[in-house]
Amino acid sequence: MDHSVWRFSAREPAGIAHGGDLGGLRKACPDAPKPWLDLSTGINPIPYPVPPVEASAWMRLPEAAEVHALRAAAATAYGAPSDAHVVPAPGTQILIETLPRLLAPTRVAVLGPTYAEHAAAWTRAGHAVTEVPSLDAIGDAPVAVIVDPNNPDGRTFPLAERRALAATLEARGGLLVADEAFADLEPVASLCPQVGPGLVVLRSFGKTYGLAGLRLGFAVAEPGIAARIAEALGPWAVSGPALAIGTAALSDGDWRAKAAEARAADATRLDRMIVRGGGQVVGGTCLFRTAEFPDGPGLYRRLAEAGIAVRRFAERPERLRFGLPPDRTGWCRLSRVLK
Amino acid sequence: MDHSVWRFSAREPAGIAHGGDLGGLRKACPDAPKPWLDLSTGINPIPYPVPPVEASAWMRLPEAAEVHALRAAAATAYGAPSDAHVVPAPGTQILIETLPRLLAPTRVAVLGPTYAEHAAAWTRAGHAVTEVPSLDAIGDAPVAVIVDPNNPDGRTFPLAERRALAATLEARGGLLVADEAFADLEPVASLCPQVGPGLVVLRSFGKTYGLAGLRLGFAVAEPGIAARIAEALGPWAVSGPALAIGTAALSDGDWRAKAAEARAADATRLDRMIVRGGGQVVGGTCLFRTAEFPDGPGLYRRLAEAGIAVRRFAERPERLRFGLPPDRTGWCRLSRVLK
Repeated sequence: MDHSVWRFSAREPAGIAHGGDLGGLRKACPDAPKPWLDLSTGINPIPYPVPPVEASAWMRLPEAAEVHALRAAAATAYGAPSDAHVVPAPGTQILIETLPRLLAPTRVAVLGPTYAEHAAAWTRAGHAVTEVPSLDAIGDAPVAVIVDPNNPDGRTFPLAERRALAATLEARGGLLVADEAFADLEPVASLCPQVGPGLVVLRSFGKTYGLAGLRLGFAVAEPGIAARIAEALGPWAVSGPALAIGTAALSDGDWRAKAAEARAADATRLDRMIVRGGGQVVGGTCLFRTAEFPDGPGLYRRLAEAGIAVRRFAERPERLRFGLPPDRTGWCRLSRVLK
Repeated sequence: MDHSVWRFSAREPAGIAHGGDLGGLRKACPDAPKPWLDLSTGINPIPYPVPPVEASAWMRLPEAAEVHALRAAAATAYGAPSDAHVVPAPGTQILIETLPRLLAPTRVAVLGPTYAEHAAAWTRAGHAVTEVPSLDAIGDAPVAVIVDPNNPDGRTFPLAERRALAATLEARGGLLVADEAFADLEPVASLCPQVGPGLVVLRSFGKTYGLAGLRLGFAVAEPGIAARIAEALGPWAVSGPALAIGTAALSDGDWRAKAAEARAADATRLDRMIVRGGGQVVGGTCLFRTAEFPDGPGLYRRLAEAGIAVRRFAERPERLRFGLPPDRTGWCRLSRVLK
């Protein structure tokens, strides 16, 4: 690591906690009832019904025409001006890692607290990152990152404010990265129709469609920039099955509308359960709810002992984030602890 | 694109031709017999039998334990010192794109002619790239890239020479990138057991196992560097199905040994057919053969009219590269043109 040729930054942020990995909990609570009920992520528990995948999708290199079909379906679903504005990637996470390396080191304001990988990725790429609490506090930073709706508190800004921010950054030759990972099923307006040279919007596939293991996500950007981002991922970035399943799912507006309705009802049900369990709902989206409890760590432990994993926050121990149970059994298990 | 914040290099290399995308040929030869026989890639036409994929592999975020199992299987298959030396990625291509961005701009020697994406990726990341014809010509470049066995001519250097090159670069604080994409089924020794801080080895999964659409590839590096490369891809870089299928396939040494034997026999058969068709075999691996013909462009056209796609080279029109037909029908179709 003393090797002169690498440009790793000297100080690396520590590993970031995420939901979705029950390894630690399984060890800590070996006697918890099985199977574990994983509510630690914000992934739709009712997945898009995966169509049969042709054997050739595994075998062949993905063809340009298949990538084109996916981009067209995504452009329509997200309201992007054209398919040339859409960059498919093997998950949004790799876009979060790649984008900072395409910019010369600069000052970056991340509106937080939010999904921690944004600040970590910009820091790793050599940028000077500040977490700011409000849009005003972005000041004259050349790059700003907002997650809208925000994870974990669901905070969202009116479209006019977000458009004004994008315009301000664009006017100064800067960049707004707007992570709309949780926008699909929410009644919020997207920045996608407005992308210009100072705006990149990120959209997640796996959360909405309940297919996080598929690895698919998108950047929406001005075509020249989109081409360079795509180039940084190289040809064949997205797997054959992800191309086929993604194109089918993104073209299915009916499924999406019904999922939005059903998950919103689930979120209301979850809120009622949280309140009954002594919690106060801070916010969230229809795929997760964040709440504060008089004894957050105690509840986390009781949930774990009942075989239920939720997301906790090291710096806010009173807070817990709940994903949606997938079925009646799951709702009942959760209800028995939150009573 | 005049936007100040981006650091795209001013001059971009033109798009690179690849095999595996028949879109253009389908348009140029609409009357060719269907289905097209795609011999334009070096992908094993007899894929590893894909085990059933559990629905949860699509739905869940991949867990750390699953990634660990894949790294362990890859370490054993490739002869890496430990699983901490292995970085799984969604295809080798994205590693080829990512590596150059982890180094400060420097001089890079690519031993060529070879797979064109290496030079393109280093150029895009701001490095000064020279193509050199021999190991000696690498001179004092801090970074060297070799593809061994080489694509398209199959050139390979004795292990001792490659080890000496790695040692030289390491001693000067530099880096050797050794792309062993086609090593799995060849009787060549790998640099994987020798990785130190000045060496990164790339290994491809899709070619050997005939599952290019799955998107899976590996970097093998010293653990500290491996951790940084993994960080640059972010968590969950590899899809759930690729983790499951990759772990099964890499643990199956029997299948690999039989595949090596069968594909070597195929390569011998293909060489005989090429010679009968008036060609002279330049080299290759057991997954593709490169040959020169008195009238390369004419043969390319006759093959296309017969619904057979092969790889041609803009700067060497006498050369064609042939992948292996997948079945008896494919061999017969090829034989009818090469006679």
